[in-house]
Amino acid sequence: MSRPIRRRTRQVRVGPVLIGGDAPISVQGMIKTDTRDIPASLAQIEELARAGCQIVRVAVPDEAAAKALAELVKGSPLPVVADVHFSYRLALMAVEAGVAKLRINPGNIGARWKVKEVARAARERGIPIRIGVNSGSLERDLAGMPTAEAMVQSALRQVALLEDLGCSDLVVSLKASDVPTMVQAYRAFAVRSDVPLHLGVTEAGTRWRGSIRSAVGIGSLLLDGIGDTLRVSLTGETVEEIRVGREILAAVGLLAEAVTVVACPTCGRCQVNVAEIAAEVERRTSHLKGPLKVAVMGCAVNGPGEAREADVGVAGGRGAAVLFRRGERIRNLKEEEIVEALMQEIEALYRR
Amino acid sequence: MSRPIRRRTRQVRVGPVLIGGDAPISVQGMIKTDTRDIPASLAQIEELARAGCQIVRVAVPDEAAAKALAELVKGSPLPVVADVHFSYRLALMAVEAGVAKLRINPGNIGARWKVKEVARAARERGIPIRIGVNSGSLERDLAGMPTAEAMVQSALRQVALLEDLGCSDLVVSLKASDVPTMVQAYRAFAVRSDVPLHLGVTEAGTRWRGSIRSAVGIGSLLLDGIGDTLRVSLTGETVEEIRVGREILAAVGLLAEAVTVVACPTCGRCQVNVAEIAAEVERRTSHLKGPLKVAVMGCAVNGPGEAREADVGVAGGRGAAVLFRRGERIRNLKEEEIVEALMQEIEALYRR
Repeated sequence: MSRPIRRRTRQVRVGPVLIGGDAPISVQGMIKTDTRDIPASLAQIEELARAGCQIVRVAVPDEAAAKALAELVKGSPLPVVADVHFSYRLALMAVEAGVAKLRINPGNIGARWKVKEVARAARERGIPIRIGVNSGSLERDLAGMPTAEAMVQSALRQVALLEDLGCSDLVVSLKASDVPTMVQAYRAFAVRSDVPLHLGVTEAGTRWRGSIRSAVGIGSLLLDGIGDTLRVSLTGETVEEIRVGREILAAVGLLAEAVTVVACPTCGRCQVNVAEIAAEVERRTSHLKGPLKVAVMGCAVNGPGEAREADVGVAGGRGAAVLFRRGERIRNLKEEEIVEALMQEIEALYRR
Repeated sequence: MSRPIRRRTRQVRVGPVLIGGDAPISVQGMIKTDTRDIPASLAQIEELARAGCQIVRVAVPDEAAAKALAELVKGSPLPVVADVHFSYRLALMAVEAGVAKLRINPGNIGARWKVKEVARAARERGIPIRIGVNSGSLERDLAGMPTAEAMVQSALRQVALLEDLGCSDLVVSLKASDVPTMVQAYRAFAVRSDVPLHLGVTEAGTRWRGSIRSAVGIGSLLLDGIGDTLRVSLTGETVEEIRVGREILAAVGLLAEAVTVVACPTCGRCQVNVAEIAAEVERRTSHLKGPLKVAVMGCAVNGPGEAREADVGVAGGRGAAVLFRRGERIRNLKEEEIVEALMQEIEALYRR
């Protein structure tokens, strides 16, 4: 496995998650519920978190949504990013509500004094700002340029403005629905700035088409060492966005270590259904971030040794197995208890 | 839409399909039927052709399969490529059967004199040879090198050998299951040779995972102007391989022009279900290669104008519509007849 050499970027903090520098590339999601519906929104955030989402974005289209933010921030297991368009006042309300990051669009936030107010508030709270450039909503004076270059110019001048105002905790995104344009914009920005990059293809499309288009755009940038965090956008999908994002990271060898399930290849000595148990455990732990090693061994020959070396392991006997936790023999299991017992141990280790 | 600048390659001919040079990037498929089962194999080739496949590959594991080739070649609407491992004799039989291209693996075809026999036969028949390097089956003496470089060396020496033997109609593939390794190998080869490249990620995986991994690997190379033909490999899928391949090409702006369905955004004047009709026509024409413009318009205001300008169009009225063919008013339709009438017209134009 050869891995891309990563571009050097400055590091910012979004709640407990680091973006940029040597931090693992994080996967972001966005809820599609009405932000004002707090129970539904928190339920969707929980669902995203279980799928492996690390940062969640929330649309803030109006005052009622901005007022719901404090509750969402309090209840969310993930750091919450407020997505604000047009109104610097909503941005200020979001900062006040305690969000971990602010996303603004330089194409529509308005006059310099408004940006200044937002910058001051973010600086005081110590939260970063993402400058979310979108090919579909660029400032009018950039309209004459090729799209990718106009996007880069829009981002660079907003970075300069915010840095002038004392905000250097920045993230930039340069999303376009056209994949080659998006790739070109990120590449051009990457050689001109050390601001960490949030990757994404905008309006990528339905689950099938959007996954392929996002994989091409985001994947090719990651292969060139460009990108510090990412979001996959799919029409009408929330959890699938996270699954696809993580799979793109896995494809380029950059998924922060997942749970590894090792299983014996099975042989004539095998006395439990190793393949089925291993596949089930793999499926049920695919959203967990490791490192955590789980061993599923079929017999008493090599089984106990391997099972002892893993964080959690089973070594099968005749329709039964022995459970090990970090080298220690815990108890005997019937075959039908194996999956649940492993999952309980894994979840307990994971919670610590 | 910005498009990649394509690497210059020599051009070869596979039946009626050109690979390399300025030829459009072709999409290949492979049948998963038993090659010896001629009716089943031809049925699957037909299915692939309907999905937009342009070249079909067929495994030739033994003499019986080689003997079936002549029938397949005769019945196939697509040029047939014989995939041969280990045996130069099977390769000779395939050439004799009239295949349009030969794929051999330099890692397992054996001694120079065997390659020489194959080269002579291919040259005499005027068919190209693909040198299909695979990271999992490299020559033993290359084992010490980093994988990507060993793959490039394997390909380069096989190219030199075949060119020495008078065969310059070559295509090279450098497939690996690890995406970064595969991308690195193709990039390294591309700067050292003008032989056209067949792109692919090997053992990419299931439909979902394999599509994402193929999109990352193949897509990122295409974005750099590398690649002249491609195949997506998915476990157990044939037609889906073609759909994903075409979608990857579309994502980078390189799909040979497809059928374009234009539809009005719909408004209060709209009197037929435009979105549903347009989506249905788009779905049913996604496999056709255009250029062909289809207009689905909802009302009598802008409808007739747009519908006249398209190759085929409808302009809706009250639960009814007027059908146009290349500017000419053909007849009135009831709403429920619209989709079928459009499809009949499209298919008729397409056949010409």
